[in-house]
Amino acid sequence: MSLVVVGSFGLDTVETPFGRREEVLGGSAVYFSLAASIFTEVKLAGNVGSDFPESAWRTLDSRRAVRTGIQIFEDKPTFRWSGRYEGDMNEAETLCTELNVLAEPPQVPADYRGAEFVFLANMGPDTQLKMLEELNGNTVFADTMNLWIDTQRENLVHLLSRLDGIVLNDAEARALTGESNLIRAGEALLRMGPRVAVVKKGEHGASLFERDFHFALPAYPTPQVVDPTGAGDSFAGGFLGSLAEMGEVNPANLRKAMAFGTVAASMTVERFSTEGLEKAAREQLERRYTELHDFVHFEA
Amino acid sequence: MSLVVVGSFGLDTVETPFGRREEVLGGSAVYFSLAASIFTEVKLAGNVGSDFPESAWRTLDSRRAVRTGIQIFEDKPTFRWSGRYEGDMNEAETLCTELNVLAEPPQVPADYRGAEFVFLANMGPDTQLKMLEELNGNTVFADTMNLWIDTQRENLVHLLSRLDGIVLNDAEARALTGESNLIRAGEALLRMGPRVAVVKKGEHGASLFERDFHFALPAYPTPQVVDPTGAGDSFAGGFLGSLAEMGEVNPANLRKAMAFGTVAASMTVERFSTEGLEKAAREQLERRYTELHDFVHFEA
Repeated sequence: MSLVVVGSFGLDTVETPFGRREEVLGGSAVYFSLAASIFTEVKLAGNVGSDFPESAWRTLDSRRAVRTGIQIFEDKPTFRWSGRYEGDMNEAETLCTELNVLAEPPQVPADYRGAEFVFLANMGPDTQLKMLEELNGNTVFADTMNLWIDTQRENLVHLLSRLDGIVLNDAEARALTGESNLIRAGEALLRMGPRVAVVKKGEHGASLFERDFHFALPAYPTPQVVDPTGAGDSFAGGFLGSLAEMGEVNPANLRKAMAFGTVAASMTVERFSTEGLEKAAREQLERRYTELHDFVHFEA
Repeated sequence: MSLVVVGSFGLDTVETPFGRREEVLGGSAVYFSLAASIFTEVKLAGNVGSDFPESAWRTLDSRRAVRTGIQIFEDKPTFRWSGRYEGDMNEAETLCTELNVLAEPPQVPADYRGAEFVFLANMGPDTQLKMLEELNGNTVFADTMNLWIDTQRENLVHLLSRLDGIVLNDAEARALTGESNLIRAGEALLRMGPRVAVVKKGEHGASLFERDFHFALPAYPTPQVVDPTGAGDSFAGGFLGSLAEMGEVNPANLRKAMAFGTVAASMTVERFSTEGLEKAAREQLERRYTELHDFVHFEA
């Protein structure tokens, strides 16, 4: 089924205990679509500058990515982010953000409208609401961040009332709902509107809340986290990409999608930038899916 | 199969966002044995003062607890601990510790020796080594804490080389091994000697490492954590109690034991002190075991 992602295409400078990389491929829509396109065709929307490297499209082009929704600005540079991870690397310290082309609203081509699945990656809830209207998708998920919880809470609450699913991390879930207990936070998110709430917990895995069931998985046991940048968007890409491939949004498929999100994220964190995800083949994700199944299996 | 626990019997004063309790039942061996005795007979060893409340034995006596290893000191008070939890309640702030009777070494009766399973709850590794020698158990697990990692590392390393299993929390696993990645920390623990390493992660669940397999579970999804005191010892009690009941230490049983440890801990954190665990019946643990199985289930 058709899947559209609206989000950022960026160049990151990142420092972790394992090294430093400058001006490498990044951005929420990039990680999302690299993961999702392993499972299904992905239609991309977002803004880049003329300095966005042509080579960046190679992997996406070789998979199933449609780029008619990419706006190239000749006079503005691509979005830049730089950050640093220390210690247990569960949180990035942002050193610098240059919005550049992200100051302009994304445009969506007419043939993106009415998509079966839509992912509105992290951006202002005002822009997400506009995209939600324009795209008129069937099943719409969105991500957010603390900045918007603090500065655009009203828009975010309005957005939530119109979403099918929200994907966010544990600190954001706590901040948005005011609940320190994550189970209560998940239930509170559902009361705000969406049918599904996915709470990402970094090295501790992820939880899914739905009216009729709760589900959780630990992270795939990767012995070396080199660069956690993009793990959450890769999770969302594996989750929604596999869900779009399966088609129907039901408990069994949501559970499987959580497992595919988990293994997609594991491919990302093992290398810098998108290196791990670019190399990831379907068979590798399927193998890790089976390993993850064994990792949590105990007799009923 | 026979199970012996050596540890503390105490009176706790605890403050959480849900209230304050003074001089309530606590201690590692108390939580451990309340959980383990749901599954199997537990032989207790440890020291109490004459001020240890007689009522505290009621639940243990009604289950399967042997108390010939309890030394009662007429001239010394029972061990006291007071602490406070705030925010996400994942860590206690210790306000005061009065060792009192714990300054004396525990004694083990002759008929505790050669037990099939032994749990050496958190105490100085020097004392744990002495208990390990005296008890001469078949399968010996131990807990530890940061204090001993800092002050008795050499004894602790020696203890580890003689243990079958170590049970500790994530911060302790990181501190003891110097590995910030928990998978590497788990593998490093195995290289230090034990066949099994269980890493407890509070609200994020627990992981088990064994030479031939890794296993992990999220915490049981409890919407109200009232008092996390004793959760780790309840986990250990559910884990070793069910393992002792099953008898053989093999991968399938270790996985099931992890699930029973998880649900035992969930009973503890929902109420103050031992209130939740005292009320817990076998059927309730079995029901939560089934719910936990469903909570992590996805199609292979």
